[in-house]
Amino acid sequence: MNTLRVTGGRVLRPDGRVTESDVTIDRDAGTIVAVGDETVSDAEAGSDAEVASDGETLDASGSLVIPGLVNAHTHVAMTLLRGYADDKPLDPWLREDIWPAEAELTPDDIEAGAELGVVEMIRSGTTAFADMYFAMDRVADVVDRAGLRARLGHGVVTIGKDAEGARADVEESLAVARELDGAGDGRIRTAFMPHSLTTVGEEYLHEGVAEAREAGVPIHLHANETEDEVDPIVDERGERPIAYAQDLDALGPDDFFAHGVHLDGSEIDQIADAGTAIVHCPASNMKLASGMAPVQRLRDAGVTVALGTDGAASNNDLDVFDEMRDAAMLGKLAADDATAVPAEAVVEMATAGGADALGLPGGRIEPGAAADLAVVDLDAPHLTPVHDPVSHLAYAAHGSDVRHTVCDGEVLMRDREVLTLDAERVQERAATAASDLVDRVSES
Amino acid sequence: MNTLRVTGGRVLRPDGRVTESDVTIDRDAGTIVAVGDETVSDAEAGSDAEVASDGETLDASGSLVIPGLVNAHTHVAMTLLRGYADDKPLDPWLREDIWPAEAELTPDDIEAGAELGVVEMIRSGTTAFADMYFAMDRVADVVDRAGLRARLGHGVVTIGKDAEGARADVEESLAVARELDGAGDGRIRTAFMPHSLTTVGEEYLHEGVAEAREAGVPIHLHANETEDEVDPIVDERGERPIAYAQDLDALGPDDFFAHGVHLDGSEIDQIADAGTAIVHCPASNMKLASGMAPVQRLRDAGVTVALGTDGAASNNDLDVFDEMRDAAMLGKLAADDATAVPAEAVVEMATAGGADALGLPGGRIEPGAAADLAVVDLDAPHLTPVHDPVSHLAYAAHGSDVRHTVCDGEVLMRDREVLTLDAERVQERAATAASDLVDRVSES
Ligand SMILES: [Zn+2]
Ligand SMILES: [Zn+2]
Repeated sequence: MNTLRVTGGRVLRPDGRVTESDVTIDRDAGTIVAVGDETVSDAEAGSDAEVASDGETLDASGSLVIPGLVNAHTHVAMTLLRGYADDKPLDPWLREDIWPAEAELTPDDIEAGAELGVVEMIRSGTTAFADMYFAMDRVADVVDRAGLRARLGHGVVTIGKDAEGARADVEESLAVARELDGAGDGRIRTAFMPHSLTTVGEEYLHEGVAEAREAGVPIHLHANETEDEVDPIVDERGERPIAYAQDLDALGPDDFFAHGVHLDGSEIDQIADAGTAIVHCPASNMKLASGMAPVQRLRDAGVTVALGTDGAASNNDLDVFDEMRDAAMLGKLAADDATAVPAEAVVEMATAGGADALGLPGGRIEPGAAADLAVVDLDAPHLTPVHDPVSHLAYAAHGSDVRHTVCDGEVLMRDREVLTLDAERVQERAATAASDLVDRVSES
Repeated sequence: MNTLRVTGGRVLRPDGRVTESDVTIDRDAGTIVAVGDETVSDAEAGSDAEVASDGETLDASGSLVIPGLVNAHTHVAMTLLRGYADDKPLDPWLREDIWPAEAELTPDDIEAGAELGVVEMIRSGTTAFADMYFAMDRVADVVDRAGLRARLGHGVVTIGKDAEGARADVEESLAVARELDGAGDGRIRTAFMPHSLTTVGEEYLHEGVAEAREAGVPIHLHANETEDEVDPIVDERGERPIAYAQDLDALGPDDFFAHGVHLDGSEIDQIADAGTAIVHCPASNMKLASGMAPVQRLRDAGVTVALGTDGAASNNDLDVFDEMRDAAMLGKLAADDATAVPAEAVVEMATAGGADALGLPGGRIEPGAAADLAVVDLDAPHLTPVHDPVSHLAYAAHGSDVRHTVCDGEVLMRDREVLTLDAERVQERAATAASDLVDRVSES
């Protein structure tokens, strides 16, 4: 067996225990075969022990081995617009700043932005993400080269388009969902991604969702993000957005909705009954003053809650450690209860919750699971002392504390050096693309 | 002149401009003598240019030179309790976890915790802080050795104490305020620090404040942090806490109050009229579910607002970059307005606002100002592209992006190596002290 062993560290197990264990990975299969004494089967355990000494090792001494983090909602190429327009509410921010800039984005720009975002994610321990954007073939190519997992989709917007343009956008999203599914040696999966229930017309939602169900791909959209988005649906339809989604057959057990800030009690129950996941994006919700999602109530209702950074223009980074901290902090304020959304909850949301929401492997370090993990260096002043390593993940660690990142059994970063992409070249390319983009926007 | 030159970087100026300038420092005086072409006087400029080439230099290429950050409210030795007890509200957290642990703290522990906190602050670009704790002679010794600036005070708590014990605590705080003022070559200043208006009895507040006024030291206390703290004052006295503070003569122009979460409009006006500063601690307020301080309203009223991490047990780090991000994000939610508390506001709060609140030099990079600064490396994937460096300070940078830290003209950290304390030894000592402390608490 072609093994990779992660040695000398402490391991965060799916039940929340932290054990001193080595993790043995079958690199060809991309799976974990042993965590300490626990193995997939006794027979395999024997063969592991034999070949382990010949395989590659990753030093995890003084470190905590955690499941690779999952960024369950982003627009990765928007790294090019990081810090481009801050301190504005969602609607004018989109109309006056973001959409005009996006109108000038070329597929090359999107590739450059995706490369930058992917490098940032690898450097902060993220191994899987969901992305809604356009020129998704270029994003898929970047994911393939980077070695990450992703659930990708073309974001549909039909408002402001004629019927032909709208239909073409829906078709594009369906084509992406069908054609890219299984790319990157199976690490890339897809979804049909209408931008939201207000930016896509009802007939297009109906058609697209029906086709997506036929193609067997899940649905991902922005839902209940702001009151300005909920009110028109209530006014026009006499029902709230989640009921509308259900009418559209868009509220299924494989679907995952971003935000879910403005949800009433009946909507939380509907989401729980449907088995749809919610991707909580606390930084984006705070920065755009969208509101506080009822995360503890969603979890109490049994909803799978994941974490997402949203795009780097409304965050302004893709570091899921920040998102864990934000989710724990904001969840307490939203619930008016300091015991709400504790450290272990946000760690679960960023790992198993994310993998489950996206329907991707990973999220748990156990024999048989996908070999997606991050090694977090705890030997630093800001992480001393270690009364509780899970508390540190939620409240004190940052992406910069990640030493190694592994996805599908492949080492993507070793000792902070990204191995699958040339980080320096990626950074230069993105800086140039961003500066050229700003020039084009100001000329247009 | 014994110079230090910070060369090749961009400099954040007091008016918010970012210019490509070298910064020249007179190390003996501990002051900035030139920023680019701007000098203290033409005559001095001539002599700078002459001797500059002989002095020490700090490379700031690809970096942003900013005023040293100010952590205007913390309990630095509480780093020993980082992650010790999370996800609990203020009152039970203090009574069940923090106070029993603090009861076991020895002066040696406090020194160990203060060393750890100071190393963490230097590594994240903080050059000045305010500290309320006990065994303050030991904290002062650490500040002296570390080379930072600080406003230090012994925290008074009289509830649960007999008259003798209460009076001794007040005397201790006054003695610290008188005796340590001007220590550390003048870098250490002091304040009289009653813990809060509810944890110190009225007669002790009266006596202590009167003595503090006589000694000419400012007053620092926790104010309006939770509703549980406001309500008893209103019930007992028929007035709100800020009016009570005014009655006590504790609301002066040199005083600075931590938190200010639950303030009504008249209190905001009283604070503004008095010229008292508010130290906003967003992470602590979120983590303990205390509420959202009206930061934009305070700023609109003309109040000086600073930022504080509070203790590492309720944060869980001492990184003022996190605090800037939290303040910008939470300020928008509190105001229900995405334009509130913008990036430039939180940067001002963390620099000039902090220095002004504490009455300490620093906070501005300009000729004649104290040579307190941090050099932030912008050459990183998560800080690419640089559309707006001030946005990056607020929303994307972390303490780990700081390359060099300078206070009073002395280099405290160069290329991430802390020069004034042995960081590795400090970390080991703190880890041991924390582990011994937990053993003692569980035995007691
Ligand atoms: Zn989004
Ligand atoms: Zn405090």
